[in-house]
Amino acid sequence: MNVQPAKTRSRAGGRSARRTLRSTRDITMLPGLSNRLPFCELMDGAHVEKIDAASMDILENVGVIFRDDIAIADWKRAGAKVVGDRVYLDRGLVRALIASIPSDFTYRARNPANNVRLGGRHAVFVPMTGAPYLRDLDDVRRNPTLGDLAMFHKLSHMSPALHSTAHHIVEPYDHPISQRHLRITYSSMKHSDKMFMGMTTSPKNAEDVMEMCAVLFGEDFLEDHPVTTGNCNGNSPLVWDETMLGAMRAFCKRNQPVLCSPFVLGGANTPASVPATVAQLNAEALSALAYTQFIRKGTPAIYGHYLSTVSMKSGAPMAGTPEISLMNFMIGQMARFYGVPWRTSNTLGGAKTFDAQAGYESATTLSAVMHSGANYIWHSAGWNEAGMHCSVAKFIVDAEQCAMAYRMAQGPQWDDFDEALAAVSDIGPGGHYLGHPHTLENFQRAYFMPEMFDNNSVEQWVADGSKEITERALEHARMLLSEYKEPKLDEAKNEALLDYIARREREIPAADALNQEY
Amino acid sequence: MNVQPAKTRSRAGGRSARRTLRSTRDITMLPGLSNRLPFCELMDGAHVEKIDAASMDILENVGVIFRDDIAIADWKRAGAKVVGDRVYLDRGLVRALIASIPSDFTYRARNPANNVRLGGRHAVFVPMTGAPYLRDLDDVRRNPTLGDLAMFHKLSHMSPALHSTAHHIVEPYDHPISQRHLRITYSSMKHSDKMFMGMTTSPKNAEDVMEMCAVLFGEDFLEDHPVTTGNCNGNSPLVWDETMLGAMRAFCKRNQPVLCSPFVLGGANTPASVPATVAQLNAEALSALAYTQFIRKGTPAIYGHYLSTVSMKSGAPMAGTPEISLMNFMIGQMARFYGVPWRTSNTLGGAKTFDAQAGYESATTLSAVMHSGANYIWHSAGWNEAGMHCSVAKFIVDAEQCAMAYRMAQGPQWDDFDEALAAVSDIGPGGHYLGHPHTLENFQRAYFMPEMFDNNSVEQWVADGSKEITERALEHARMLLSEYKEPKLDEAKNEALLDYIARREREIPAADALNQEY
Repeated sequence: MNVQPAKTRSRAGGRSARRTLRSTRDITMLPGLSNRLPFCELMDGAHVEKIDAASMDILENVGVIFRDDIAIADWKRAGAKVVGDRVYLDRGLVRALIASIPSDFTYRARNPANNVRLGGRHAVFVPMTGAPYLRDLDDVRRNPTLGDLAMFHKLSHMSPALHSTAHHIVEPYDHPISQRHLRITYSSMKHSDKMFMGMTTSPKNAEDVMEMCAVLFGEDFLEDHPVTTGNCNGNSPLVWDETMLGAMRAFCKRNQPVLCSPFVLGGANTPASVPATVAQLNAEALSALAYTQFIRKGTPAIYGHYLSTVSMKSGAPMAGTPEISLMNFMIGQMARFYGVPWRTSNTLGGAKTFDAQAGYESATTLSAVMHSGANYIWHSAGWNEAGMHCSVAKFIVDAEQCAMAYRMAQGPQWDDFDEALAAVSDIGPGGHYLGHPHTLENFQRAYFMPEMFDNNSVEQWVADGSKEITERALEHARMLLSEYKEPKLDEAKNEALLDYIARREREIPAADALNQEY
Repeated sequence: MNVQPAKTRSRAGGRSARRTLRSTRDITMLPGLSNRLPFCELMDGAHVEKIDAASMDILENVGVIFRDDIAIADWKRAGAKVVGDRVYLDRGLVRALIASIPSDFTYRARNPANNVRLGGRHAVFVPMTGAPYLRDLDDVRRNPTLGDLAMFHKLSHMSPALHSTAHHIVEPYDHPISQRHLRITYSSMKHSDKMFMGMTTSPKNAEDVMEMCAVLFGEDFLEDHPVTTGNCNGNSPLVWDETMLGAMRAFCKRNQPVLCSPFVLGGANTPASVPATVAQLNAEALSALAYTQFIRKGTPAIYGHYLSTVSMKSGAPMAGTPEISLMNFMIGQMARFYGVPWRTSNTLGGAKTFDAQAGYESATTLSAVMHSGANYIWHSAGWNEAGMHCSVAKFIVDAEQCAMAYRMAQGPQWDDFDEALAAVSDIGPGGHYLGHPHTLENFQRAYFMPEMFDNNSVEQWVADGSKEITERALEHARMLLSEYKEPKLDEAKNEALLDYIARREREIPAADALNQEY
């Protein structure tokens, strides 16, 4: 994949090195993205302050429910007005608390070459997670296994534009739910040396993840270095529950970042208004962001959200609609106003197969995400059917789409402008450039050539077997998996991780399959 | 399709009028778009001047070939240095000439309600043209007929976000090529009362189009009112040919706008550099724009281009690549720098079927187009297989995508912000909004609901027949066509048009099928 970001990179080895690269697949991770696009800022300063004021009014006068005794006690100690489980947050308190959130920080991966910065213009692509089904290497829709999860972790590892393996890309149904978080975390750690996400399915599960991270990185290292990310969903409107808050505490206490993610179904759990939905979402995010800093001042935290609008016909979430783009643009402005890194969701869609609907939805979302300047770009590969399945074919194509968006966000390359103009003089009117030395030297870095798009003539395409993109992407996935090389874990750490899992699996009753509290 | 742009539009009849709307399809054309997005401007002033200077250097020192005796004579009279068919254009001359191009103007349609403004932030969506094949209502790929062309003109007429019926959306192979332009023009005029494009396949064909426009609108009316658009492609690098220049003269002399469109295959007929490609394209566009003003000072003209990058494997044009987005952003800046309306191409792609590739390519292009601030947004529906076929299914979906992009480009609606915030207080934490009066009143205008995306559960989707988007779109096309009502031409004008065609068909030998000079 021709994703070398800058001329300097190819200069290292010169032309002959690049020729070699062409004949062997380069799966080297792209550095964390530095997004050079001017962001799409729809709001002027007055609009931003209008949203801010509306959100603060909501926090002060409507309040937020924290369905969690510890959080309620914490908020009382913080000086908030509390009535039952409803917390009324003064804007001064909110502003004071969120002031200590780092505006950017660096994630450490077990391979330091894969460290990535987050915040400001620094962004990362993270694959989807949480699918109860997959469409597999034969495009068959079924429940996933630990083997399927490993496959997605391997594909994440081999996709240059993906900066993370995430966690439960698919839910491994062949392992008891009460113990699943251990195997999921181990799979992320084992199959790739990129960063990964941490399970927040219960406070105890989150603590297990923290312990496993301590084994992998060292207890003390965690104190100063973000190595994983937990997602904490809010229940919009204006509710945070015990599970999420407990998991949040587990992460924050160890200085590990959480996404504070209101779960927005525009029109169903928010008003029928884009700006008012942003105001409510903003209030929700701020309430959780503020709480992270009460838990531990200065701990990294990320302004999050899951964002869809709902269908009037069915109440189902929709993706790729204009309002989702607009909300992304606006939320980006709010997060930058507060100086907090922010997360959004990428390549969402509600298609049942990898048809053109999936393509339109995903590309529309990806584009809005890039122009909105999101930092933690989650669900960047595989998402389909409103997250109900992860598609192997779509995973491959989405990952390449991220590489293309990455290239776009780097902006034009001016370094050889004069040389290239000299070629215009050399060639003159009516000529062609394909044989010109400047073209031969620069074609590959000048123009991205997608592998998953077929641009041949229809005659050639028929001769090649009339394959639509789904079939081509599945072939590509099989090829990648056949070339996969495991980036081996340190043997002692691997043993320690397996010991930890074995001990915890003895302690957690597998039979108690639905009890999330272990 | 819920595309009412503003609350005022629904206020006209109030809530009960909107209920009626919901039960009958509203095919009313959306007003010309006023794009409120902040444009994606990658270049600072120095970069813009760098491109401008490079283009002017090319015009002065490399020169442009005009393969046309009349143009060469014209350039000599204009004071340009001419050597053979190569014209060297001084930057002062170029700037003086392009200064008279109107920065915006209004197209007149035969139904004045469908007039649209172009230039500045004013933009229009125009369907694709020129496909030698179609994928028809059964998704079969075959050569098109006049009946197929009429079908696409009807679908254009019934798509609210399409502001034009264009011209030869598909090539009607059942009519002699030498006479085809007459039937194509008549089909555009007859099946819709939106604006349309004019054939430029030869100077004489262009003159026929002008005569037919004079019949439809009146000879004098044309003098002051743009009613159609001709496309003149350049042969990059730096060549304009006789056919295009002759057609250009036919349009400009009647005060009708032309697109001055370099035909760019990035890396093949331009340098392997995004900024240098823009510089060459800019020089090419400027040379033709300048010529339009020599033909007739003050005639409207549009900065055009067809833009793709080429595949290293096959030399085939690619779409949806990052460099095409970047070039669109940059070209938009250049056109605004010169104060000239500009054209780009929308929903391009190289997929052979309406698969996910087509969706990704089209949506990526559409998004770049909206963020680049293009005015004349051509090829906005149906394009597939690098323009080799127009797909009925894709046409329907693209047209809805344009409606969604239109909504996005309108930005958020703030007019009911306070009411919507009051709903947040009413509902409070943990509630839901679906039954709230503000939601009932505003849901439809607040959130676009695409008809072509299926967002149901997989179970419902299976119960509905497991239809992918291609099948659903074709059903939708059939439904639309069954509801089509012709916006009748004035009887006397219709007779006069048919008389003109009959006379010209007697004059033009049908047998001389390949002679483009008639």
